[in-house]
Amino acid sequence: MRIAFLGTGHMGLPMARNLAAAGHEVTAWNRSREKAEPLAEHGVRIADTPAEAAQEAEVAITMLAEDHAVEEVVFGDEGFYEALPQDAVHVSCSTIGVEFSRTLADAHDLQRQGYVAAPVFGRPEAADARKLKVVAAGAADVVERVRPLFDAIGERTFLVGDDPSLANVVKLCGNFLIASMIETLGESFALARKSGVPEDVFLEILNGTFFSSPIFAGYAKAIAEKRFQPAGFKLRLGLKDVRLALAAADRAEVPMPAASLLHDRFLTGVATGRGDHDWSGIAGLVAEAAGLD
Amino acid sequence: MRIAFLGTGHMGLPMARNLAAAGHEVTAWNRSREKAEPLAEHGVRIADTPAEAAQEAEVAITMLAEDHAVEEVVFGDEGFYEALPQDAVHVSCSTIGVEFSRTLADAHDLQRQGYVAAPVFGRPEAADARKLKVVAAGAADVVERVRPLFDAIGERTFLVGDDPSLANVVKLCGNFLIASMIETLGESFALARKSGVPEDVFLEILNGTFFSSPIFAGYAKAIAEKRFQPAGFKLRLGLKDVRLALAAADRAEVPMPAASLLHDRFLTGVATGRGDHDWSGIAGLVAEAAGLD
Amino acid sequence: MRIAFLGTGHMGLPMARNLAAAGHEVTAWNRSREKAEPLAEHGVRIADTPAEAAQEAEVAITMLAEDHAVEEVVFGDEGFYEALPQDAVHVSCSTIGVEFSRTLADAHDLQRQGYVAAPVFGRPEAADARKLKVVAAGAADVVERVRPLFDAIGERTFLVGDDPSLANVVKLCGNFLIASMIETLGESFALARKSGVPEDVFLEILNGTFFSSPIFAGYAKAIAEKRFQPAGFKLRLGLKDVRLALAAADRAEVPMPAASLLHDRFLTGVATGRGDHDWSGIAGLVAEAAGLD
Amino acid sequence: MRIAFLGTGHMGLPMARNLAAAGHEVTAWNRSREKAEPLAEHGVRIADTPAEAAQEAEVAITMLAEDHAVEEVVFGDEGFYEALPQDAVHVSCSTIGVEFSRTLADAHDLQRQGYVAAPVFGRPEAADARKLKVVAAGAADVVERVRPLFDAIGERTFLVGDDPSLANVVKLCGNFLIASMIETLGESFALARKSGVPEDVFLEILNGTFFSSPIFAGYAKAIAEKRFQPAGFKLRLGLKDVRLALAAADRAEVPMPAASLLHDRFLTGVATGRGDHDWSGIAGLVAEAAGLD
Repeated sequence: MRIAFLGTGHMGLPMARNLAAAGHEVTAWNRSREKAEPLAEHGVRIADTPAEAAQEAEVAITMLAEDHAVEEVVFGDEGFYEALPQDAVHVSCSTIGVEFSRTLADAHDLQRQGYVAAPVFGRPEAADARKLKVVAAGAADVVERVRPLFDAIGERTFLVGDDPSLANVVKLCGNFLIASMIETLGESFALARKSGVPEDVFLEILNGTFFSSPIFAGYAKAIAEKRFQPAGFKLRLGLKDVRLALAAADRAEVPMPAASLLHDRFLTGVATGRGDHDWSGIAGLVAEAAGLD
Repeated sequence: MRIAFLGTGHMGLPMARNLAAAGHEVTAWNRSREKAEPLAEHGVRIADTPAEAAQEAEVAITMLAEDHAVEEVVFGDEGFYEALPQDAVHVSCSTIGVEFSRTLADAHDLQRQGYVAAPVFGRPEAADARKLKVVAAGAADVVERVRPLFDAIGERTFLVGDDPSLANVVKLCGNFLIASMIETLGESFALARKSGVPEDVFLEILNGTFFSSPIFAGYAKAIAEKRFQPAGFKLRLGLKDVRLALAAADRAEVPMPAASLLHDRFLTGVATGRGDHDWSGIAGLVAEAAGLD
Repeated sequence: MRIAFLGTGHMGLPMARNLAAAGHEVTAWNRSREKAEPLAEHGVRIADTPAEAAQEAEVAITMLAEDHAVEEVVFGDEGFYEALPQDAVHVSCSTIGVEFSRTLADAHDLQRQGYVAAPVFGRPEAADARKLKVVAAGAADVVERVRPLFDAIGERTFLVGDDPSLANVVKLCGNFLIASMIETLGESFALARKSGVPEDVFLEILNGTFFSSPIFAGYAKAIAEKRFQPAGFKLRLGLKDVRLALAAADRAEVPMPAASLLHDRFLTGVATGRGDHDWSGIAGLVAEAAGLD
Repeated sequence: MRIAFLGTGHMGLPMARNLAAAGHEVTAWNRSREKAEPLAEHGVRIADTPAEAAQEAEVAITMLAEDHAVEEVVFGDEGFYEALPQDAVHVSCSTIGVEFSRTLADAHDLQRQGYVAAPVFGRPEAADARKLKVVAAGAADVVERVRPLFDAIGERTFLVGDDPSLANVVKLCGNFLIASMIETLGESFALARKSGVPEDVFLEILNGTFFSSPIFAGYAKAIAEKRFQPAGFKLRLGLKDVRLALAAADRAEVPMPAASLLHDRFLTGVATGRGDHDWSGIAGLVAEAAGLD
């Protein structure tokens, strides 16, 4: 398929490369062009604007940091909203808000373009190894059309239903669960350390009892080693995702006190200058509040 | 070895049976004697009092619901404190408080008895299948002496150090992590449900992305199916464990806001008559607060 | 002065009447016209649209329930934005968001109209008795021009500075403080009641020690008597105000955990069907969670 | 009356002096004797031990920092428990736990001594000026007998009922309300400051709208001026009181999430070395978490 790929950062770059490797015709764009250029040697064309990238595309994939970036890339002066052909599909892989996803769905509908929300779980290494998990939602026939792309970037695709924004709900819940685990691991490590349990022993026990899941194991290791830089996923993006989860919960009238607690924790991190640390750095805040180093 | 096994409930019964099956000479006692009697056919002798059970034992194992029960079994009128021979070892497998574990250590030391804290992770089925994880702490030589017993009841033993109470800290942290996951799963399911994500789809995604760990997967399933009875582990015992974690944290001066939140949630459960539900029932409280069924 | 008064609800009606009584020439508008009509006998003209009310006004005062209502009245099809003469002043007395107040300031600036944020503290009885406290902010000369109006509706005016939105910050902080006091009174009454302290004795002690302030004393009485209907100020408006406070705090990067707690409490109230109760009804939720009637 | 006064700190010293001034025969004791000595010139006798002070007393008044201190003074080696004559009354003015107050009641009953819980509201200046508020509970005839003493130290006495521990519940609720107000003032000031509202203006508005109550006004001033030392009431004692409130709530099965939040805040203060600051210093923690100074 002819694909416009918008946003070639840590996640987007390997995703675009895997799409090209699977035989798709990819045109990439990135705000700082130099981050897209390594794709040229994989046969990817580099465009100067989102509109240019999308003008003959069958599918436009966005993989950007936040709602505003997506808004700019879609609706901005150089955005692809009007350039993308009728019947083409916008596949939104970014972790964006539920409301904004609805806005996108409506807007593309007006323009007779398709819209599929397809946020992904997995860190850059998973993107690299085509091991992402894709959570997709949208009109069944449209999802069916773009599904081969999911197979090119991930190892498994889950379908949530017709309403695209439901995929965003699921993604936000997932990030909330991870963030919660970081917080509670942080509190556990603080109690264990201050009580005299050696960190490596505590980590070994957690791995041997709870964490067959590599996601949690990785965070437990970072916390045990107090290694919060460089960031795999920035604390300020963690704050953004908790905000989006709370916004969705507020609108749906679902009190989420653990999410509120996380919000205040991440906000403390950003307000005190740790926005660029890894989001596991909230465990460092927990330790500090306990008077540890 | 000659073992006195005190407390043959859901967990203790299969543990005692496995010890007998491994060739140890077990005398069991339980507050309601009829719960111990099924052990007789496995060659276990049933005693009328803890003191009687322990009088010729090399090891006394306690597996009881809470601090007060252990206190009664050790120091009460019929307790084994004075009956247990010098040099014999009290192995405390119950989930008890950190302070109380220190009290036990001191008391046994006075009496020249050994003391090992060895709380276990695993539900009754794991106890049955000799698949418990044992977290043990105590003087190295004493732990070494009783270690074969751990191999008879579990699949893996972790050693935390010389101070027995550290094993209790680890156990309380572990239960706190599980309880936290239940709360955050509950909040996630409430948001997903109220937003329109089908429960079974959400569960499938969680299992396919996060929960290779069977512990969490089991709770996610119970929450998806809103099935909180009968209790595998009672909500009021969950409250007890969070209280013990907070007591340890308070003494160590470690603020644990997620544990505070859990405390208030479990306390709400008990105050509103759900103390005998499974502790995953706190997810039901979350759903109610969101106006769901 | 010639005044357009937009929004003649519980608060706006007595405010408009007091302005007329002070000799101002008032034209009033309300979404349901019949609520404005009692003003006619006080010499107030009733207009059919905000635009009509404002077309010859020197000052347009808005006293509405929330941001959306103000947005409609200012910028909607029948809104006064273009009708209000140049150099006239919009005095916004509603409790609105900090960001939206900035948007209004910019919009009026474009139109060469003045803008003053002047939220008020006080319940309807205080409005009736000209005992409101006005918290005003805006360009000094513009504030000076409209100041006589504040004297006509309130007993004291506080000036916060040039930036109108600062007055909104102060108002949101004030409502947050009142809501917090309701929550903590609710928790205190629940503990006192369940411990056996008679409510009337507890109330008498609070009044005799802490609450020379009539604001708090009134809420304490309602809680003691469990009388949460009819609403003086609706729980759903309380939720709105906590949301606005949290939005301002989020933008300013100020973690406010007590406000987060209130948010979740009020949201529970709305999600479980109590949105139209008085906002002191959150104390009823506290009591329920404690298993009290 | 012949009074033994145990504990002549900031609060106890002026209370004992006022009792002597009212014509009572006072024997005082303090752990560090030199703190009691200034009382000699007011005709107060200084004793070497609590037992000595109490041996001919009709009333023994305790005014100490915490449960352990009271326990030592009553039941310790030099404690007054056995020295205090039958029919004499122990008046406990300290802020102690509800459970411990019950323990004291039972113990004195065994010894045929009376017991009245009579915690007081007010800072040292109020004690000095005989302006304390006394909250008393106990058997009606016993309370009646000691009531003249309350008139000698305070301006008003509230009677809660027959069960002495109810007075302690009320006192703990009161301190919880004050602590909550400090927290929420701290959050409000942080939002106001970071948004650009001048502190003195914000303080003036609070005083002009909410805080006719001098208690709250005093704390608002301290927060506005960021003046948390020297301590009027130490942060570590604030932590103690929140702990006691939570313990009472836990036992009564009353979830108090705002108290949990305060617990974690005060614990952070103590864990990070601010235990000897004034308890209003938690507002400083709030400001720090917002990245302010």
